[in-house]
Formats: sequence, structure tokens, C-alpha cells
Amino acid sequence: MKISELDTPVLLVDEDAFNRNLKRMQTIAADAGIAYRPHAKAHKSPEIAKIQLAHGACGVCCAKLGEAEVMVAGGIEDILITTPVIGPSKLIRLMDIASRAKVTAVVDNAANVAEMAKFAHIAGVRFGVVVEVDVGQNRCGVQPGELALALARAIKDEPWLEFHGLQGYQGAIQMTASFEDRKAAADRALGLLTGTAELLRANGIEVPVLTGGGSGTSVIDAAAGGLTELQPGGYLFMDSRYRQVEWDDGNIIPFEQSLTLLAGVISRPAPNRAILDMGLKAVSSDGGPPVPLDLPGADFRFAGEEHGELVWSGGDCPLALGDQVRFAPTHCDTTVNLYDRFISYSGDDVTGVWEIAARGRVQ
Amino acid sequence: MKISELDTPVLLVDEDAFNRNLKRMQTIAADAGIAYRPHAKAHKSPEIAKIQLAHGACGVCCAKLGEAEVMVAGGIEDILITTPVIGPSKLIRLMDIASRAKVTAVVDNAANVAEMAKFAHIAGVRFGVVVEVDVGQNRCGVQPGELALALARAIKDEPWLEFHGLQGYQGAIQMTASFEDRKAAADRALGLLTGTAELLRANGIEVPVLTGGGSGTSVIDAAAGGLTELQPGGYLFMDSRYRQVEWDDGNIIPFEQSLTLLAGVISRPAPNRAILDMGLKAVSSDGGPPVPLDLPGADFRFAGEEHGELVWSGGDCPLALGDQVRFAPTHCDTTVNLYDRFISYSGDDVTGVWEIAARGRVQ
Repeated sequence: MKISELDTPVLLVDEDAFNRNLKRMQTIAADAGIAYRPHAKAHKSPEIAKIQLAHGACGVCCAKLGEAEVMVAGGIEDILITTPVIGPSKLIRLMDIASRAKVTAVVDNAANVAEMAKFAHIAGVRFGVVVEVDVGQNRCGVQPGELALALARAIKDEPWLEFHGLQGYQGAIQMTASFEDRKAAADRALGLLTGTAELLRANGIEVPVLTGGGSGTSVIDAAAGGLTELQPGGYLFMDSRYRQVEWDDGNIIPFEQSLTLLAGVISRPAPNRAILDMGLKAVSSDGGPPVPLDLPGADFRFAGEEHGELVWSGGDCPLALGDQVRFAPTHCDTTVNLYDRFISYSGDDVTGVWEIAARGRVQ
Repeated sequence: MKISELDTPVLLVDEDAFNRNLKRMQTIAADAGIAYRPHAKAHKSPEIAKIQLAHGACGVCCAKLGEAEVMVAGGIEDILITTPVIGPSKLIRLMDIASRAKVTAVVDNAANVAEMAKFAHIAGVRFGVVVEVDVGQNRCGVQPGELALALARAIKDEPWLEFHGLQGYQGAIQMTASFEDRKAAADRALGLLTGTAELLRANGIEVPVLTGGGSGTSVIDAAAGGLTELQPGGYLFMDSRYRQVEWDDGNIIPFEQSLTLLAGVISRPAPNRAILDMGLKAVSSDGGPPVPLDLPGADFRFAGEEHGELVWSGGDCPLALGDQVRFAPTHCDTTVNLYDRFISYSGDDVTGVWEIAARGRVQ
């Protein structure tokens, strides 16, 4: 089957670019002698997780318990859940998957540690826990230093929990375009994490795992040392925002835009305008409108939930009814979450389908 | 089961408010002596479509062929597809559902009419077609007047297509807050549609169907006369943008906010801040951030794909870990499209589940 035969709108992955992205991240981690645990929130697909494992990943991260459940059901055996798991209902679900796979939970609260330990005891399940440290994002996490030490001690006191180490993630800097600015911020974040690890070690606590980082800071974090594993997600797919990020060699980020959208022309109401079948339900808008590829002079704007519009301000629209138009998303994660499957291709040929089995698993 | 026992984030429907909204729209249409054909793009659920039919709806609208396929599979027998169906692959699918239900297609292009007629002939399926007229939205649709007449004649010339009438929808004015401004714009749009219908009739073409309008202009369109059926979608659920619309009695729109989101507190990193489990993947952002209910002084901001943040600038956060927080979405359609099911409730009790079976059916 050819791409031109696909119904639109459709979510496409250039398998060749995708494979090169896989190998690039594997090389970054291997050259630094550290592990990498890609974030499955980007793809939500056990099939892709298995491909990442085959390319050297030590396991995957999940943002949500529901994603982790889908990954375990899909055969993934080593999962770090990067967000706190709160409340009895979710803790019961955590015990279930922790009894069937190597699951590591993240905590930032002593009451949550105590409740988690109680559930682990009742379920007879022992699993790893890492303390999330707020390294500058001001989101979840305990403050670096003494508060993190206190929480680590609370975990060490629980016989059904294994203290594995620390997580630190500074999401706000991943897309800082300037390499020097991003490096300075990443070094500050990493310093808070490694400083906290040193404090724990000085207090007799082993810290085997320091996990964190994203696609944007991966090359910086790998070179700096300190982290034992990287958590990149977007490197597989890229998006128009990530593709503005400068790399350590002065060029832009070397990961390729493997994820694109294919939309179709459904109306030609005026010489300089085309209406597409891609609106707010078919591509995310939180990063801005998607970017049309190979269409110089065309501007895209959303025209409702099911429609998009291409306008040529300096000339006529060259498209006919039924023509296909390719776009780069501005935000890969939220766009993937709108679809039930990826269609992979090589050249003009469709090569396969990857189910996005954890799509919508927000709980 | 109680709402307090639900995992978060979750999409809730207040069944009592929902039922009152159903009855209000039924009354608006009945008082005007016209039909109403609610837009299923808002709920994407055959179960809800059946409830609408039981409350007097003559059928449903679908924005996408894929939605219509799910509706037909779910037992809905009368469907208007409000967007052009373009290209061989989609036309084959259109023939399939048109052979199994009363399906009406919308067209705005003569070449599409000719191709559709060819497929209808080959498939041996005869079905209704309406011409979309651009009544001011500048999206799909032929211009009012002679161009619409020419397209109606092209349909009349095709033995396998039945010309049913005209569609006109002015989506851009549905949320105009001022009743007078909205009424003036709605009257202009309706005038373009009814004027075109008169032209067709003067040329010997019967125009049994004039379909259009939305929730915001429903009371205006019903009172003005001219339309034979209304196409409201958002009236069932409402959102914070719709709830700013003024009605004909000087009060705000009488449809109630039946659709809400329930999020959970997963971290309390500072006295005046709470981190929630609801981010960009759990509520749409295209209309702005969702609005916290019953939490005076709290501002919500997105904190990534899986996180949201509530900040109290004038005091401390009253929430504890695990607490639930209710939100009104700013855009109901795009929020519904993120979820696989609605949970309905009455008071504190969960009353049922409606599957969003057409979620993600963008093709």
C-alpha cells in the first residue's frame, strides 16, 4: 500500500528516520556509559517500547499508572512510573502491576510513602521507590537536600519498599533553543540532584539510581555525568518546537522529524484557500498550529474541531480537491494522544501499524 | 458507587442537568414547529444519540464519515454528514453506510457530485444530498445564489442522488456574547440561506430541507423561521465559553454545565500550590485553561501533558493529597474527544457509563 492510498487525516511515522533517532539516543547513552529508559508517554505503544528495548533501553518510563498497566499487559517488564501514585484505588492497581513486572514508583510525600508501604505489606509485594527531587521545575518533588534525605530515610524504614535513588526532571528547559543557556540550566538542575545524592551517601544511604533528563538536555546530561539513566521521550518523533533546539556542535538537534500528519483537501472555496480535513481533533494546538511541509507561501490556521484552512497570501493555492498535505506537529506527545495508531512508512510505501494502546490512559 | 470513589482524572456528566438540557432543546424546536438533528460530534456516542432520539431528535449530524460509521453500527438510522466526503476510499465507505441507513451527504463541489453519483450508481445505492452554502463562515460551502443553484441542478441531473436541500452553518457567531450582535449576524446568515432557497424554488427546484444553526443561535434561528431543522451540539454539555452567551431574555444561555472534569491532587509542593493529575492530555486547551469550580481564589495553569497546577495568590491552598477538584472545560467537543467514556451521575451517585465509541474517528 502507498501513502497516497491512505485515508486522511492520519498519523505517520517515517520508519527510517525513526530508526536513526533510536540509534542516535542509544549512542548518546552508550558513549556516556549510562542507561537510557525512554519515556513511553511520548508513544503510548508497547510495540514501540519493545523496539526501544531491542535498541538498548533498560526499560521504559510511564507518566501514568494506566500507561504502565498497558505496558505490562503488552509484555514490558521494567517500568518506572514518573508521577506520584496517590490514593487507595491507584495503590491497589500499583500493587497489581508490581506483582507482575519490575515496577518502580516515584514519591515526594511521607504520607504517601506510609500508605504505599501499607498496601505493599498487605499485598505481599516488594518494589523499588525513588524520591522525586524538584530540580527547578516547581512541579512535583521535594526540595533538594535535607527534605529529600528525610523522605529517603522514611522509605529505608519501610521493609516492603526498596529505596532505589532519586529522580530529577527539569521539563521547562528541554526546549530552550540556545545550547549555552540550556546547558547552564541543565547543569544547575543536575547539580541539585547530584548534590542531594551526595548528602544521602554521606548519611550512609546508597543511591544506585539517578534518573532524569529529557530529549533536549540528553547530550548535556550524558556528557556531564551524574545521571545513571536518561528519560528521553520526544527524540523518537520530534516536533517543530524541538527542531529549533541547538545542539552541542552548533547545529540544530540531530533527531529527525519522523512524526508527521497527512491531511486531505476537502474544499476549494476560493483561489487562494483550501479547506483540510484536519482540525483541533486531529492535531494538537497547545504548541501552536502545525507547520505545513513542502508548501512554500502557505499558512495554516485551525477552522474548528474538524477543519483546517491553508491560505496563500501571495498567490493562488496549488492544491486540488483530494490532494494530500503533510504537516509537522508542534507538540508530538499531545498529537499522538489523539490517535489510536501510527502508520509507519518507508519512502512511499506503508510498512506497518503500531497501536497506541495506552492512548487516553490518563488515570 | 460514589463520585468520591472514582479514579481521576475522569469526565463526568450531571445526568439531571443533561436531561434538562435535552428537554430545553426539544422545546425550542417543538415551539418553532421544526425538527432538530443534534450534532453527534459533540458526544461521539451512539448511546447518547439514542437518548436524543428518544427526546424528539429526527436523527443526528456527524462531522466525519468515521463518526457516521460508528453511529450506524450503534443502531442510529438517520444521519447527515455535515462535511464533504472526498475521494474514492471515503466514497466507498459512504456507499457502505448509505446502503444500511438513511444517510445524507453534504457537497460543495461539482466534481465531487459527479464522482459521488458514479459511486452511487456502481453500488446501486440512492441517497440524499444537500448543498452546503457559505453563509459567512468562509470555510466549506458554495457562495449563496447562482453558484448554489448550479450545484443543485447538477445534483438534480444525477439519477442516483436525491437533492434534499441546503445546509448553512455560521460557526463563528455561536459564542458571540451579546444577544443583539449574535441575532444580527444569525439573521444575515439565515437570510443568505433562505434567499438561496427562494432562488432555487423560483427555478422549479423543491427545497424540502434547510438545515443549520448551532446551540448559540438555536433560539434565534428557531424564532426567525426558515430552517427546517436545527443542528445543535454543545447544548447537552456546555462549557465555560458557551456559558458567557446572553439569551433572548437578557439572562445567560439556559443550558446547564452538565459536563465537568474531576482531577486529583497528587502533590502539595508549597503552602499555596497543589499539583493535579490533569494536564494537556486530560482536558483541551484550545479554548484556554479549564475553570476550577467551588475553589475561590484558585488559578489553574497547565504544567505539562500530565500535570496541572492550582495556585492561590492570596492565601494558602486548602487541598490535601488525594482531594478531588471539579473543573468546567472551556471547550466541550475537544475535551470529550480525549476520553473513551463519560461517567454519568446524579447527586453524589454514579449512575452509568456512556462509551465515546466514535472518539478519535477523524477520518
